[in-house]
Amino acid sequence: MRIVPKSVQKLIDEFGRLPGIGPKTAQRLTFHLLRGTKQRAEELGRAVLDLKNDIQICSICSNLAESDPCIICGDKRRDHNTIMVVEEPLDILAFEKTGKYEGIYHVLHGVISPVEGIGPDDLYIKQLLDRLHDGQVNEIIIATNINVEGEATAMYLQKLIEPLNIQVTRIAHGLPVGSDIEYADEITLTKALENRGKY
Amino acid sequence: MRIVPKSVQKLIDEFGRLPGIGPKTAQRLTFHLLRGTKQRAEELGRAVLDLKNDIQICSICSNLAESDPCIICGDKRRDHNTIMVVEEPLDILAFEKTGKYEGIYHVLHGVISPVEGIGPDDLYIKQLLDRLHDGQVNEIIIATNINVEGEATAMYLQKLIEPLNIQVTRIAHGLPVGSDIEYADEITLTKALENRGKY
Repeated sequence: MRIVPKSVQKLIDEFGRLPGIGPKTAQRLTFHLLRGTKQRAEELGRAVLDLKNDIQICSICSNLAESDPCIICGDKRRDHNTIMVVEEPLDILAFEKTGKYEGIYHVLHGVISPVEGIGPDDLYIKQLLDRLHDGQVNEIIIATNINVEGEATAMYLQKLIEPLNIQVTRIAHGLPVGSDIEYADEITLTKALENRGKY
Repeated sequence: MRIVPKSVQKLIDEFGRLPGIGPKTAQRLTFHLLRGTKQRAEELGRAVLDLKNDIQICSICSNLAESDPCIICGDKRRDHNTIMVVEEPLDILAFEKTGKYEGIYHVLHGVISPVEGIGPDDLYIKQLLDRLHDGQVNEIIIATNINVEGEATAMYLQKLIEPLNIQVTRIAHGLPVGSDIEYADEITLTKALENRGKY
């Protein structure tokens, strides 16, 4: 016997496939849409269907973009001698929000993770190396996440790039702003001590 | 300058309008779909668009259903002398999962909430009263939530129905299974004490 209408169950199932959405949340979201107007549900449905339209991968930096080259790679006012390597497109957004970075980017679309079976060939690493042969780039800032995979990927890239006589830097490890020393983990504290700077 | 492609931003915005989905989660869900296959995104998009197709409100119990009367109201083996009043269609699902309730239901589609401007006329209360005039029903179990609005709605219904010479009951308040008395709130403990039963 089917208590829940088929179309309702279908959407509960689909929501439940998204990361971090459990069955209860999937139910709640579905019934929220059911209670709302037909127009609201249609807006969401259309947005999902249209998601991949007009999106391409920038042939220079591999970022998701509406144009090729993307808006950042095509910006002549930016510093094209410095490339920041990030894991995901959203990381670019985070750095752009600071307004403090003038260089350009390269998106790996992931990190090296033997556990998940992701090797260097699954990432946009070859495309990064291709950008370094014309001698225009003089610094690569590696801004992968500060975790095991991010560090391993950073190390891998560093070994790959340093022979090309290009400076490789890593974003700083340390205590985040507003943090309590009392609650910081030992590795962060050790890094914060090692990387201490002069007043 | 637009860093995030329009279609991506649109979906982030739409996800962000759902209850309990903050901007960060909306970003994460969107990029999850971006990374996945086009087919996966289409399944979700279609499910959202199809949500309200073939769904109607049962003319007897006001539950959302594919048929009218719904599958429960149309089931002759159930006890049509007992009606359980619930706030939402999902509450029916919860009770059906217990497999212990043989009666039929009535869905209010909400609770009386002066704060949110929801009065009795905004709920399916008139439809409930219409079901009580043929003398077939002998018990109304009120299963609204155990909170201020749920209790107020239960009280309101009780006053409305008791003059019709129909027994009105309320689902039991008490300690949930697996709970620690140490951590229970005072009101729950008081109710658990008041409603204590013999061994």
